[in-house]
Amino acid sequence: MVSGKEMAERQTVTVLDVAREAGVSVSTVSRIINGTVKVSEDKRLAVEEAIRRLEFKPNLFARSLKKGTTMTIGVLTQDIESPFFTRVMSGIEDGLLGSGYALIIVSGHWDAAEEAERIRLLIARRVDGLAILTGHLSDTQIAEFARSQPIVVTGRRIDAPNVRSVFFSHEEGGYLATRHLITLGHRKIAFIAGPPDHADAVSRFEGYRRALAEVGLASDPSLVVQGDFYENGGVFAMNRLLDSGAQFSAIFAANDQTALGARMVLSRRGVRVPDDVSLVGFDDLPTSAYLTPPLTTVRQPLFEVGQFSASLLLEMLGNPRKTLTLPPLELVVRETTRRI
Amino acid sequence: MVSGKEMAERQTVTVLDVAREAGVSVSTVSRIINGTVKVSEDKRLAVEEAIRRLEFKPNLFARSLKKGTTMTIGVLTQDIESPFFTRVMSGIEDGLLGSGYALIIVSGHWDAAEEAERIRLLIARRVDGLAILTGHLSDTQIAEFARSQPIVVTGRRIDAPNVRSVFFSHEEGGYLATRHLITLGHRKIAFIAGPPDHADAVSRFEGYRRALAEVGLASDPSLVVQGDFYENGGVFAMNRLLDSGAQFSAIFAANDQTALGARMVLSRRGVRVPDDVSLVGFDDLPTSAYLTPPLTTVRQPLFEVGQFSASLLLEMLGNPRKTLTLPPLELVVRETTRRI
Repeated sequence: MVSGKEMAERQTVTVLDVAREAGVSVSTVSRIINGTVKVSEDKRLAVEEAIRRLEFKPNLFARSLKKGTTMTIGVLTQDIESPFFTRVMSGIEDGLLGSGYALIIVSGHWDAAEEAERIRLLIARRVDGLAILTGHLSDTQIAEFARSQPIVVTGRRIDAPNVRSVFFSHEEGGYLATRHLITLGHRKIAFIAGPPDHADAVSRFEGYRRALAEVGLASDPSLVVQGDFYENGGVFAMNRLLDSGAQFSAIFAANDQTALGARMVLSRRGVRVPDDVSLVGFDDLPTSAYLTPPLTTVRQPLFEVGQFSASLLLEMLGNPRKTLTLPPLELVVRETTRRI
Repeated sequence: MVSGKEMAERQTVTVLDVAREAGVSVSTVSRIINGTVKVSEDKRLAVEEAIRRLEFKPNLFARSLKKGTTMTIGVLTQDIESPFFTRVMSGIEDGLLGSGYALIIVSGHWDAAEEAERIRLLIARRVDGLAILTGHLSDTQIAEFARSQPIVVTGRRIDAPNVRSVFFSHEEGGYLATRHLITLGHRKIAFIAGPPDHADAVSRFEGYRRALAEVGLASDPSLVVQGDFYENGGVFAMNRLLDSGAQFSAIFAANDQTALGARMVLSRRGVRVPDDVSLVGFDDLPTSAYLTPPLTTVRQPLFEVGQFSASLLLEMLGNPRKTLTLPPLELVVRETTRRI
C-alpha cells in the first residue's frame, strides 16, 4: 500500500527524473545543482534544459534535514558597509571557495542584544558553522552558542570548547605606530582614540603609552582626544584638537577611517601632511594606499584573517584544507610621516 | 495509536515545553525566537533561561517547510567588498528592518556563469525573494529565475513577470557631470571610461558625448582612456593620459573609485586639483566627501536604492510597508571643480 505522503512525493519531479531526461547520471545532476565540482559544458546545458523542461526545484532544505548539514556558514558582522569588516568577509569568501559552503551574512551593529538575536536567527536556520567578527557579546554567550555549532571569533580571544579565536596584539600595533613617530624625532604625539568600550581601541592606546614611556615620556592628556572609529569622529576630534591650541608634531589615529577624517580637517585648515604634521593610521584599508599622500599605517592582514578563519571552520567541520599561517601586524611606511 | 514519527516528535523539546518552563505564552516564545517584535526584558530572560535548561533548538528549517516560507531574502552582489554594493546592501538591510526577513548574501564576481550558480544555490535554500545587484545575467535567465520567487534587480531594466527593476538613467548622470564642467568654462574634458561591457559605464560615456555635442564639440578620442571602475584602473588611466601629452583642463571619471586612483596620480605628478585640473566622479561613495579636496560627483542614492528594493520585495511578498519614492541622480558640487 502506498501512503498519501509517498504519493505526494511521487508526483514531485526528482533528481532521477532530471537525470533520465538529460541522459546523465544522478550524481552529475547533483554536482551541477550543488555547484561544487566542475562538469563539462554540454552536460551542464543538458541538465539545465531538463531542469527547465520538468520545472524541477532542488530542495536543499529537505535534503539538509536528512543529512543534518546545510552547507552554510553564518557570519555575524557588525557593519555591512565597513571596509574593515568587508575585507575580512572577502577573505572568508575566498577561504571557502570550492568547499561548497555558502555564506549567510547578518549584522549586529555593535549591540550585544541585537548580535545575540541575529545569531539565534542563524542557528534557527541551521548553519553548520559561525564566524563572529568581534562585537560585544560576552565570552559566556559565545561559549553557549558554540554548543550548537563550531564558532570562529575574530578580534578577540575566547577559550571555550568548539570555539577558535583569531586575534592580534593591538597593544603591539599601537606601539609600532607610536615607536615609528618617535624614531622620526617626534615627541609631541597626539592620539585620536577609538570607542572606549572597544577592546582593540583600548589596547592601541596602551601601546601608544608604552612607546612613549620607553623614551621617558608620559601620555599628555591634552593630546588625547576621543574618536569613534568612523571618518566623522576623526573630523570632530581633529577640530577639537586644533581648537584647543595644544602643540603637536604628529598624530596617531586609532584607525584609518579616523585618519581619513582627521586628514580632511588638516587639509581644510591649511595644516600640511606630512610637512607640518605627521599622521599614522591603523588597519591599512584598501583605499588607504590611494589617499593623498598615501597613508602610513599599521597593516592588519584583514583578508588573511578571513581566509584563516575559513580554514579553521572547515577544519572544525571535518573538511580541512591546506594549512595557512596568519601574518603578523606590520607597519607600512608611506608618505604621511616624516622626520621632524 | 501513535506512529513512530509522532513518538520521535514527542521526545523533542517543543516551543510548548519552553513556554511552560518559562511561564509565558507560546506566542511570546515564538516572538523571542524569531526576534521580530519587542518583548519585555524579564520575559526574554525567562525564555532564554528555559531554552538553555531544556537545550531547546528552534528549527526554522522544519517550520519553514511546513509554512512554505523561510523569512529569508537572497542578495546577489557582484563584489562583497565594493563600497558601491555594500551601500546598497546597507539600504536593503535598513528597508527590511523589523520585517523579520534576514539576508543571505552571495557574490557573483561579475561572471554570468558564477552568478547563475550562486542564484541556484539561493533558490535551493528556498529564499522567499531575491535582489540581484546588476551583473551579467541575461534578461531571459533572470526572468527564468523569477519563476521560483519574486526578484528585484537594481541597475538595469527588465520587463518580466515577477520582476521589478530599480534603475537610473546613467546617460543623464554622465550628461550632468560633463555639463557642470562645460558651465565652468572647460572645453578640453578627458573621460576615464568604465568597463565597456558594463551598461552603466557605456551610458555615462553617451551622456558625456551628448553634453559635448550640445556645445558643438565632438568627443576627442585622444582624451578618452579606459578604466575598470576600480582605483587601480584610475591610476593606470591617469598615467596613460598624462604620458600621452594630451591637453585637458578637466577630467570626468566614470566612477568615484576611478576618480580616487586618478587623483592620487595627479597629486604624485604635481598636478593640483582643482587649480590645474578639475575632477568629477560618479556615485558619491561615503568616503568621497572626505577626500582632499572633497570630490565633486554625481550622487547615486545607493542607500535609497537598497531601501526601495526592499520595499518592492516586501510588497511582492504580500507584506507592503510604507511607500517610498526613489530620489533622482544629482550633481553634488564640492571642491575638485572650478571655473577655468
